[in-house]
This record gives sequence, C-alpha cells and structure tokens, in this order.
Amino acid sequence: MQFELKKTDPFSAARRGTITTAHGVIETPAFMPVGTAGAVKAVHIRELKNDIQAQIILGNTYHLYLRPGLQILAKAGGLHKFNGWPGPILTDSGGYQVYSLTERRKLHEEGVMFHSHIDGSKHMFTPENVMDIQRVIGADIIMAFDECTPWPCDYEYAGKSLDLTHRWLSRCMSRFRETEPHYGYEQSLFPIVQGSTFRDLRIKSAEIVAGHHADGNAIGGLSVGEPAEQMYEMTELVCGILPTDKPRYLMGVGTPANILENISLGIDMFDCVMPTRNGRNGMLFTSKGTINLRNEKWKDDFSPLDEDSTSYVDREYSKAYVKHLFKAGEMLGPMIASIHNLAFYQWLVREARKHIEEGNFTSWKSVMVKQLSLKL
Amino acid sequence: MQFELKKTDPFSAARRGTITTAHGVIETPAFMPVGTAGAVKAVHIRELKNDIQAQIILGNTYHLYLRPGLQILAKAGGLHKFNGWPGPILTDSGGYQVYSLTERRKLHEEGVMFHSHIDGSKHMFTPENVMDIQRVIGADIIMAFDECTPWPCDYEYAGKSLDLTHRWLSRCMSRFRETEPHYGYEQSLFPIVQGSTFRDLRIKSAEIVAGHHADGNAIGGLSVGEPAEQMYEMTELVCGILPTDKPRYLMGVGTPANILENISLGIDMFDCVMPTRNGRNGMLFTSKGTINLRNEKWKDDFSPLDEDSTSYVDREYSKAYVKHLFKAGEMLGPMIASIHNLAFYQWLVREARKHIEEGNFTSWKSVMVKQLSLKL
Repeated sequence: MQFELKKTDPFSAARRGTITTAHGVIETPAFMPVGTAGAVKAVHIRELKNDIQAQIILGNTYHLYLRPGLQILAKAGGLHKFNGWPGPILTDSGGYQVYSLTERRKLHEEGVMFHSHIDGSKHMFTPENVMDIQRVIGADIIMAFDECTPWPCDYEYAGKSLDLTHRWLSRCMSRFRETEPHYGYEQSLFPIVQGSTFRDLRIKSAEIVAGHHADGNAIGGLSVGEPAEQMYEMTELVCGILPTDKPRYLMGVGTPANILENISLGIDMFDCVMPTRNGRNGMLFTSKGTINLRNEKWKDDFSPLDEDSTSYVDREYSKAYVKHLFKAGEMLGPMIASIHNLAFYQWLVREARKHIEEGNFTSWKSVMVKQLSLKL
Repeated sequence: MQFELKKTDPFSAARRGTITTAHGVIETPAFMPVGTAGAVKAVHIRELKNDIQAQIILGNTYHLYLRPGLQILAKAGGLHKFNGWPGPILTDSGGYQVYSLTERRKLHEEGVMFHSHIDGSKHMFTPENVMDIQRVIGADIIMAFDECTPWPCDYEYAGKSLDLTHRWLSRCMSRFRETEPHYGYEQSLFPIVQGSTFRDLRIKSAEIVAGHHADGNAIGGLSVGEPAEQMYEMTELVCGILPTDKPRYLMGVGTPANILENISLGIDMFDCVMPTRNGRNGMLFTSKGTINLRNEKWKDDFSPLDEDSTSYVDREYSKAYVKHLFKAGEMLGPMIASIHNLAFYQWLVREARKHIEEGNFTSWKSVMVKQLSLKL
C-alpha cells in the first residue's frame, strides 16, 4: 500500500492524497460506506460503483466471521470474490461489535470470550485469531484488535484498557508479520489509537501507535457519545503526533459537519453507518440541511428529492413520492434514501478534495458546516 | 387504445399482438409487474425499464385510494407523474382487495362498505366512484368494479354474485362514458368475466361482457385456489366467446407454467405478485426450474445466480452470496430476487412472442412447461 500526500491546506491541517491498494486507488479524504455483512444495506454493487461512486467499502469482521463464516469466505476466495465488489475493502477487527452487540462477553488478557448475537454460540477473539480471520476475509486494509472504551469512562479504567489495547497491538503486529496473505495480494494492518477523552492517554497511545510504523493509523473510541468539541480536541491532538506520511482513519465518524471538521484536523479516511441507517429511517442529508421525510410538510412537495445532488434518484423521484413510500412501508423508500445519502457523502468528500486542491477548503468548510446543520 | 392482432399460432389459440396506449406500445402476450402502492416492491423505476424491460405496470386502486389518497394523486397530475413510470399503467378496481384485505365489509346493491386495513376508517366503493377514482389515478387501462367470488363457491351464491357484477358493470360503463379523462390522454375500461368454475355462468358472463364492446376484456375470479385444470377449462371456454379483435387479460395469474398454458388458450395479458412475493421469500424462477435459496445446498455454490438469464443481477451475484443475504436478513436479497424473477417473467413472455411469430409456440411450450416445474 502506498500513500501519496499531494497537497496540504494552508489554513488548516486538511490534506489531499491518494492511497494505492491492490484493488485500486482511493482519493483522500475518503468516505467508506459500511457493508456490515458483506453488503451495503439496500444498495446494489452497480449502484455503489456508478451512482454513489464509492472508492472503498468496509466490512465487519464480527458479522462476517459469524455469517457466512470463514469456511464459505475461504472457499469463495475472499470477500471481494464473494460479494462481487471489485474495489478496495477495509475490515474492522470485531472489537467494537463484541462490546456493543453481545450481552455476555468476558475480557481476558488472552482475548474476549463472547456469545453470538445470532444464536448464542460461544466464541473467542484474540489478537492472533482476529489477524487470521482478516487474512481469510482478505480485505486490503485490516484493523488491529482493540478494546473500544464506552463514554463516559473513568480514568483508571481507560488507562488499564489502553495498556491492554497496546499489548494486544504488539501481538497483532507480530501475528500479522508472521502470516501471509491468502489470495496473492498484499494487506495492510492499521493500529488504533484509544484513550477515551483523556489527553495524556491519547498522547501516549498516539506515540505507541506511531512507533509501530504501520502503513496507516486509525483513531478509535470517538463518536461514542462524547460532545463534538471533545472529539475534535482528541483528533487534533492525535493528528499532531501520528506521522504525516501515512493515512489517518477516524473510525465511525460521523455527520457531514463532523467529517468536514475532522478533515480540517488532518483526517484522511472515514466510515459511518449514518447515511444508510438514517436513510432507512427517512432522513436525507443535503447540502442545504437535513430533510425528515416523516414530516407531513413533504406530502405534496413534488419537487425532485434533491435539486442540487448528483445522484439519479434525486432527479427520478420527488419528495412527495419518497415520503409516500416510507409511509406505505415500501422497501423502495429506504433503497432510495440510502443511495441518496451515500451519494451525498461521496459528493461531500469529493468537494472537500477539490477545495483542498484549490486552496480554499477552510472558507468553503465554514459556509458548509452552517448549512449542513439546518433542518429543512 | 388500439389492438392489432399480428399472428395466431397454427396449433393453439396463442396470439401475437400489440396494444397501443397513450403512454406507449405493449407487445402481447405481456406480463405486468404489480406496483400495489405505486411502486413495484424493492425495484427502482430505472431497473423496471432497463433491466426488467417491463412494458406496463399495474397499480391497485384500493391501496392508492387509501394511501397516498386522491388529493395527492390529483395534485401530482396522476400516478404516472407521481411515481415517475413513463409507460402504460393498468389499475384494478379495488374489488379484489376489498374482499381479501378487509375483515369488515358489507355488500349492498349500491356498492361495498368497508373498513381500511390501515386505520380502520370507513369507506364505500360503488361502481360509479371506482370509475371516478380511476379517472383521478389516471391509468391507461382501468377495470370495472366487480365481486370476485372465493373458491370453492356454491352455485347459488356464484349466480347471484354474477348478476350483481353484471348490474355493476352496466353502471361502470355508463359512468365511464359520462366522464372525461383528467390529464388529456384517453383511458380504456375493461369489463371482467366472473362466474367461478361453473361453465354456464362463465358462458353467460362472457356473452354479457362481449356485448359491451369494450377496448379489451378481462377474466377474473380464477387462480383463487381452484385446480389448474379448472382454470384452463374456464379460460378456454371464455376465450372462445370473447371477441378476437380485443385483448384478453387473465387477472392474477400465475406461475410461469400457468402463463404459458393460458397463452396457448388465447390470453394476451397477465399480472401476478408471484415473481416479487416469492422472490422476497428467496424463491427464484429459472428456465430450468425453481431455486429455493433457503436450501442449504446453495451455501457454497459460487456460480452465477442464473447462468441462462439476461438480467445483470444474474451475472453480478452468485447463488451462495444471495443465499447469505437472505440468511443475514439483508434487504439486498429480496431486491436481487425481485429483479431476477421479474426479468425472468419478461424473458418468458418475450420468448413466447418469438415462438408464436416463428409458428413453433406449441412445441416450445410443451418442453418449457416440464422444465419450469422442476425443483433445482
């Protein structure tokens, strides 16, 4: 994997770059649609490519490990072959899901024992087997196994958890170096900075992570309920320590405004379920603010879904029609909203890239952030 | 509306024709995907046009009347404008839904009083207001308001119901003649032959229906539980009486084999929820038989969804992947299966048209009917 830094914004830490993987180039800053179980919910692969113009998608190790399972994924020749997505893929490590989805789990030095949320069956994730699992899934970028602390979190717990995450990181790095990719193309392992919202813990973690000299680095444990200002404070702090010549990935973030603010702090990669999850609930993100299709005001608004957007669904369907689809419980409503929102997120980072290139990112960002937060 | 009969099969009553409507030409025999609430479930308009190659879609008067309601449809300028489907549309009369969806309904000479299945609100459908409602919806082809008898049905009930349906038909025809289309293009009203599975009632009904000299004629009350042989017997009987120079529409039929058999008896138009409903349950129709994706045998079958099919989903996705999507409860599974099945139904009638033109429909049909009924 190669990262080329092409330009840095003169008025902020925003960066314009390219990541080259075995499955293609990712222009950064980039947003990665989430394909939890190997599919971006309610969206065809063709739409991801042509309409949404996604460059890379994300898969969840926890979900893929449980279903379809490693046997099927290995037999298919990895996730790319299984789901037909030809571009780059990133998989998370399953750490976040183990903490958020399973009720019964037990943390040990060795790893985490947990029960499947599907059938209650017992499983263990360790730094070593999570590397092995991600070798089988075959994503271009794979993530270290960590503990994602909840928020709020007391200092003592956060400190102990961080030490464990760092010990696990060393074990991940070793296992990764000792093993080979399964399908003939290289994979890159990204370590994850943790430390909750404590400055000293985040500094320590960023320094340890940077010391591993990985192909790219991630920031986890944010966007878990803390105020946005604290998120930005942590991002800024950590970006000041992580190497500039490697891509920086802020995990699980966020709203369109969150994304622009974090780009200005030096983040290159994002993922979030918000465009698809909120879309399935009838919420549209647009460049002029958000639209809640559950609202009665749209019932006889026959104007295009979003006049300013680039996606075909925005020209093909009206607000009134899509509102009707949601009211009638028609699957087509969530399908349309998911395409719209993902295409909007891709438009947003494409515009951000353009404005970084033009040198006017910061001015553009301050106008956009105000508009994006309006409720239409 | 114009119907041109281009060719009749030398060995059966199968016909090849074209119906010209204000919104375009329909090549017959034709299959109409069902868009109950103004949307074909889980399918984008673009996919209906380009991938499925639907020529005409169906809307349900009962559903559209309740939601979005006539005010919205009128304000939109009719259903075509509301949902963005540019081709011909047919609406049923709501009779079937009143009988099958609502628990509390009461039949009067005047019409049917019923309670909405959505909110329990009280409504009345009469032959007159159902014509008015279908004027507002604005479909190219609209249907007479009838009573669809259940099966089995005793002779006395079927006879009395048929007389009521005929009195209602006269009222529908009068109201239709007295009113004008709302949106500047012509609409055609099709009467419906009823009479359950009683030969004398069907003969009587077909004669009365034929006597109205409508632009096209429909056969209702079949495919409601009776054995296929009885359905074919009734179709053959009625097709022998209905005029040859008008299209014949068999309502709510059916399996791929049912469609081929009824084409051979002289039917020109079909509609059925089976391709979408069964698709949403993981059942695929193919030219070699049916595939139940819930079956474990497909879990590691990485071959294309249907090697012989024309639709892009059949090349883009494997059986194992789509099986996984159904198992994981991913919306993309029903989306893929709906496109596949509708594209298959369109392929089936396209092939039927080709074989009627070539004069070898009957031989082709007997081979196909055997294959279509296999379970893969």
